[in-house]
Amino acid sequence: MKNIYIIGIGLIGGSIAKDIKRLNPELSIFGIDTNNEHLEEALQLQIIDEKAEFADLKHADAVILCIPVDAAVTLLPEILDLVPDDALVMEAGSTKVAICKAVENHPKRRNFLATHPIAGTEFSGPKAALEGLFQGKTNIICEVEKTAFNLQERALTIFKIMGMRIRYMNPEAHDKHIAYVSHLSHISAFMLGKTVIEKEKNERDIFDMAGSGFASTVRLAKSSPDMWTPIFKQNKTNVIETLDEYIQNLTAFKSYLETDNFEEIYNEMASINHIKDILNGIQ
Amino acid sequence: MKNIYIIGIGLIGGSIAKDIKRLNPELSIFGIDTNNEHLEEALQLQIIDEKAEFADLKHADAVILCIPVDAAVTLLPEILDLVPDDALVMEAGSTKVAICKAVENHPKRRNFLATHPIAGTEFSGPKAALEGLFQGKTNIICEVEKTAFNLQERALTIFKIMGMRIRYMNPEAHDKHIAYVSHLSHISAFMLGKTVIEKEKNERDIFDMAGSGFASTVRLAKSSPDMWTPIFKQNKTNVIETLDEYIQNLTAFKSYLETDNFEEIYNEMASINHIKDILNGIQ
Repeated sequence: MKNIYIIGIGLIGGSIAKDIKRLNPELSIFGIDTNNEHLEEALQLQIIDEKAEFADLKHADAVILCIPVDAAVTLLPEILDLVPDDALVMEAGSTKVAICKAVENHPKRRNFLATHPIAGTEFSGPKAALEGLFQGKTNIICEVEKTAFNLQERALTIFKIMGMRIRYMNPEAHDKHIAYVSHLSHISAFMLGKTVIEKEKNERDIFDMAGSGFASTVRLAKSSPDMWTPIFKQNKTNVIETLDEYIQNLTAFKSYLETDNFEEIYNEMASINHIKDILNGIQ
Repeated sequence: MKNIYIIGIGLIGGSIAKDIKRLNPELSIFGIDTNNEHLEEALQLQIIDEKAEFADLKHADAVILCIPVDAAVTLLPEILDLVPDDALVMEAGSTKVAICKAVENHPKRRNFLATHPIAGTEFSGPKAALEGLFQGKTNIICEVEKTAFNLQERALTIFKIMGMRIRYMNPEAHDKHIAYVSHLSHISAFMLGKTVIEKEKNERDIFDMAGSGFASTVRLAKSSPDMWTPIFKQNKTNVIETLDEYIQNLTAFKSYLETDNFEEIYNEMASINHIKDILNGIQ
């Protein structure tokens, strides 16, 4: 393995590039991006060694696709067409059903590994790339059995460099679970931001009163709409299910307030406090 | 000013004690708490100089009440009865209408200052107390005109020590605004935690997939039900209003998903991204 091509050199692609380069400086990292400014930035920040184009993919040992999930579904088959027969191609998006479906009958399906390295921040672009972002984090691999064995090994070498824990899952289970622990959190934060901003139009003083609790709860509302609109589109059914349950829980909480059932409110909160132990497991 | 009594020596009371002691070591800090374990802890951690009881309040120059807001409403009139005629009494809870109402006709109303130092973490008890927690944060003072002028000055001296920005507001405006930027965030986080925990009963794998985004959004669901149930109770009307708007926004987002209106979803997120600039003002 010598030439690694990263397509989409933003937060995720850039962070992967940094880790690989830092820990395996003998590898060459090539960057491809539709945004030439980002590409120049990545070059100046030494996140990539060289800019490249799709035609160069014929020299790739590994390709890592880190672009919005709708573009990934369109581009992945074309990328597989371009790479050598022994190249590994991975995609790192937050949905896995559509991408696996897009290449299920591709002649080079065995060159592809579907992955979701679960890490990130609310920022985007190459400047947002962080060394060690994936250290100790979970990487979900889907349909591992459909990838050539030697290419699985090549992928695992990269993930080992990045310090990731590997879990195997089918794409349907991935998309369903991730809707709860990631996609719903984003909607919850965006709608909290919206509710408070709408109020602020009339009440200019309100944000002076916002503390660190609000900042933390609403943080994901800074996330990129370019990245997240296609995620919600592809995972629409699961996301609607999580939203239904979330709205039901909020509505029940509201009805406890309306009926002065503060005992139930206390008990709910006490029981949800159990999230402490769960989150300790995450950190 | 020599003797400061802090009633309720947890996260907020303990943090106030630490700041005052660090910056004005000549002051004596006395702690009063119904939880004797917390009191012993506070003594061992040198958060307070001495344990005290309500009868000792006759020696107080200043009293700071940092207990759940329902207990505060009950105790505040009794505390005012006990303190000397020239003592300052403050209360630091997250609601202000009920506490101001509770003492509106008290003969020592002018000894009382209603405040809300807006800072905190999701933890509780004296071990959660942090030095510098209030540095640069906002402190809302309500009905300042009802407090004796020299006691206003005494209070401002303490807040200056703590490095707080002061804003003046009437209790009704405080409770309405704080419902948006604080109380709603807590419910949003608790219900997110509930939705995901309920799923986890059947799907044990789910938490392995939770990343830092989920951890941040759900953080406030670790908060104390003892502290928060009375807050929701006292601020019920405002909280219900914020919940109504939040649920409406979530329901609209869901209907955009259901009708494949991804343009609107994109536009909403792009517009809510403006929260970045607002949050920069908070940090």
